[in-house]
Amino acid sequence: MDTILESRTKQVIIGADKPFCIIGERINPTGRKAFAEQLRGGDLSTVAADARAQAEAGADMLDVNAGIPLVDEADLLSQMLKIVQEAVDLPICIDSSVIEALEAGLAVYEGKPLVNSVTGEDERLEEILPLVGRHGAAVIGLANDETGIPETPEQRLDIARKIVSVAGDHGIPPQDVVIDPLAMTVGADTEAVTTTLQTIKLIRDELGVNMCLGASNVSFGLPERHALGAAFLPMAAAAGLTSAIMSCARPVVDAVRATDLLLGHDAWGASWIAAHRARKAHEEAVATR
Amino acid sequence: MDTILESRTKQVIIGADKPFCIIGERINPTGRKAFAEQLRGGDLSTVAADARAQAEAGADMLDVNAGIPLVDEADLLSQMLKIVQEAVDLPICIDSSVIEALEAGLAVYEGKPLVNSVTGEDERLEEILPLVGRHGAAVIGLANDETGIPETPEQRLDIARKIVSVAGDHGIPPQDVVIDPLAMTVGADTEAVTTTLQTIKLIRDELGVNMCLGASNVSFGLPERHALGAAFLPMAAAAGLTSAIMSCARPVVDAVRATDLLLGHDAWGASWIAAHRARKAHEEAVATR
Repeated sequence: MDTILESRTKQVIIGADKPFCIIGERINPTGRKAFAEQLRGGDLSTVAADARAQAEAGADMLDVNAGIPLVDEADLLSQMLKIVQEAVDLPICIDSSVIEALEAGLAVYEGKPLVNSVTGEDERLEEILPLVGRHGAAVIGLANDETGIPETPEQRLDIARKIVSVAGDHGIPPQDVVIDPLAMTVGADTEAVTTTLQTIKLIRDELGVNMCLGASNVSFGLPERHALGAAFLPMAAAAGLTSAIMSCARPVVDAVRATDLLLGHDAWGASWIAAHRARKAHEEAVATR
Repeated sequence: MDTILESRTKQVIIGADKPFCIIGERINPTGRKAFAEQLRGGDLSTVAADARAQAEAGADMLDVNAGIPLVDEADLLSQMLKIVQEAVDLPICIDSSVIEALEAGLAVYEGKPLVNSVTGEDERLEEILPLVGRHGAAVIGLANDETGIPETPEQRLDIARKIVSVAGDHGIPPQDVVIDPLAMTVGADTEAVTTTLQTIKLIRDELGVNMCLGASNVSFGLPERHALGAAFLPMAAAAGLTSAIMSCARPVVDAVRATDLLLGHDAWGASWIAAHRARKAHEEAVATR
């Protein structure tokens, strides 16, 4: 099942037989105090720089989030989306829990975005899905609902199934629903990753839809987070995860591209070898400057 | 199922709920021309250095191989084993395809080693298993036989099952048989890793025995082999692999230790955090010298 996303000029396909879709996580003020202060003060200069840096580092898409307390999120998100669309030609994941912000974001977006996100809560489904359907967008569906975050993979599957079904009622086909199987921090629960991996396998086998998760959650509070992300993503991809909102730090991106090659999604290592040659050529150019 | 290996003073347990067992691959002249020439000329000084370096880098066990054409392998392997046992206190994987060399190696080994390896070939089974049984050792069983390397996971499972069964006839219990599901190079076959991962899952589910493979095979002929190994091992461990003969380069060892944490085999990240602190303390000590 292929999920097609589009910027003004570029198409990205998320699919089980495609290279893993890397969605850069960085344009998000959550946990970035200095960036949040800049945005609050009307200084949006970091947004374009972060967009370019992540595209350069290998992102296929970019997540854009404007969630700052007591700020007009609809207005800020629209401004940020315009800047990112000017800076790079990657499709965008429009990220907000505020319906008005999603509405404003969808209004300024050129192409087919991924809306991040809806949950299995009835109220959220009825608010957000009509909007997604009207704009012909795709949507991330989080496998939690009114009862919270389910502990078992089976319960998460049930919620995923409900989201896909209700999306269908709103004219959104299964290929435009990307399920988030939920990755919790392993520092708080030693079973967290095992549960996530089982959920991914179950959703792949039972629903066959694409999946996306916030990969950095896993390592929250632990040291050497890039090394943990670089180990988590190959496991998740082998289980059936097809995209992630993630760090674009080199070890993490390398782990994902190595996984593409190992799983047969980079035939004969063509992309891997080309990236290696480009990197070596760059290093030699720098060395002889 | 726990496989217990022992040096003179140290015990290592391979098991599905234990940290992954890292078996250092380096003490092997195959593909190491300078090392092979040294050994041929009677200079064994690199052996102890390689043993210490791998122990320092995080190896739980060491593979020792003396396979050089036209050399008295039994004599060389015995000498190398003595040196490694003097240098470090890790259990050893005695690695040879020559029965006399395995015999000589087992005679000088102090503790309970892992014998690398037997195949599913009748003749090899009848030659090697009595030796393993007599010494109370554990043995690696390669999932290939007279017909070569099977293409399908099911055929590899059949051979694994046969090895476990014949080992039982020789008084070797299933916990002392470690199956090698076979990792071929993905540069020659884009399905190679997928087949290996499926084989690992199948053997875990059907036989429940421990498994070990030569992880570096996967990346043979490709650039940035450490990055490929660092992505392969988390996938393999999540599928059920419990040990590997592998590089002890830092990115690869880090990937395995991160995987231990993520899969819940390093409770609350105690080892991960301790290693991080030791590394930081070491870096600070070096910086202030």
